[in-house]
Amino acid sequence: MILDVAFSRLDPACRSASGRAVAVIDVIRATTTITMALHQGCAGVMPVRTLSEARAVVRKLGRDVLLAGERGAERAAGCELGNSPAEYGQERVKGKTIVLTTTNGTRTFQAAAGAQTLIACSFLNVSAAARRLAATGLDILIVCAGRHGCFCLEDVVGSGMLIDRVLSVGDRPIECSDAAGAAHQLFATHRADLFGMLRGCGWGREIIQKGFGTDLEICAQVDLTDIVPVMRKGRLVAERA
Amino acid sequence: MILDVAFSRLDPACRSASGRAVAVIDVIRATTTITMALHQGCAGVMPVRTLSEARAVVRKLGRDVLLAGERGAERAAGCELGNSPAEYGQERVKGKTIVLTTTNGTRTFQAAAGAQTLIACSFLNVSAAARRLAATGLDILIVCAGRHGCFCLEDVVGSGMLIDRVLSVGDRPIECSDAAGAAHQLFATHRADLFGMLRGCGWGREIIQKGFGTDLEICAQVDLTDIVPVMRKGRLVAERA
Repeated sequence: MILDVAFSRLDPACRSASGRAVAVIDVIRATTTITMALHQGCAGVMPVRTLSEARAVVRKLGRDVLLAGERGAERAAGCELGNSPAEYGQERVKGKTIVLTTTNGTRTFQAAAGAQTLIACSFLNVSAAARRLAATGLDILIVCAGRHGCFCLEDVVGSGMLIDRVLSVGDRPIECSDAAGAAHQLFATHRADLFGMLRGCGWGREIIQKGFGTDLEICAQVDLTDIVPVMRKGRLVAERA
Repeated sequence: MILDVAFSRLDPACRSASGRAVAVIDVIRATTTITMALHQGCAGVMPVRTLSEARAVVRKLGRDVLLAGERGAERAAGCELGNSPAEYGQERVKGKTIVLTTTNGTRTFQAAAGAQTLIACSFLNVSAAARRLAATGLDILIVCAGRHGCFCLEDVVGSGMLIDRVLSVGDRPIECSDAAGAAHQLFATHRADLFGMLRGCGWGREIIQKGFGTDLEICAQVDLTDIVPVMRKGRLVAERA
């Protein structure tokens, strides 16, 4: 089994998504928020690229739908929800379909569109995500959301944690690419203080400045749930693993 | 002073090359070979993208010129030199201008073409390269050659070593990007066994299979020289730092 990591949706490693089991990681905050939404009982999350696309999907679906959007960390104009996992409580999202667009995270799902299996991973569900990936028996690609195509430490550390879990549950020989090995090493460097890593990385510092610092406490929770968001016909739905 | 790393020539971080001091790193093997060539007394190295471009430049320059080219690790057809630093002995290169094209390394210089200062760095000259970069007083960008736009461990560890040296010579506050911090950490992970890292990384294993394993012994030599290849009008020439 081959295990590879793309450091952003623009990384050419994404070209190998086809036929693989692919996990998208956007620790701060899209895949944390998606995992939380499904954990709180929402019916499904549809990640879309643009706000106009999101509005069109909401109109088409009609009822029991929430429009969620983020631009520059803030809730986008006209949206009922932003990208803060704290907003996605049970009372708000249970039974609803959420149409979500974010600056980097949701667009990353399109970069991995050829995947055989496509899931969302965050610290919140990392062990369940590893079990779900390993169960496919496929080669694995982890795609970090990154930021405008550039490297984000928190997503790479998240990838390294996911790799750590896959290595511990896998029963077949696993060949790590250079990128996967490096992600695993960076996780080892930061595993003792994940919350400190989230507060110290570039995007974490900006999120704190913008007033979303408490979100990082949610993002740092490891294995809060065994829910794995799995893509089915353009919609991420909850599976337990 | 800002310190950033692009993990390949296709990394969007390259867009910030303009006005910065930029170091290109291709440990296996282009920047090792370029450093070695200048250390052995060659007059200058012109990195070009394609073989046809290289042939045209050689014809234009006329005398005291060597055509050097690599494709798929091997010496390219019709070239007098390949990309093995072992070929670049004094008896072969002294006083000559070398026109060099390689699959990843030489193309990386074009990605950083807007740089205020542009140098080549390898393990062979890492401390001298750090002094040269720090002396500019500019923000620093390190561009890894990578492989077809993807992450190569050896270039990132080389970047981390260069960062380590810049941090030790710099007298101004330095702000590392996430990518620069990660490279520095990966260097710390591998610093005790750089040769083992070169033999174990993806491209290192392929180079060994292709029969160039002894090149890795050359690539692994730290601070063999205080020569820094500096770009002047399309030609990398030797400076001491």
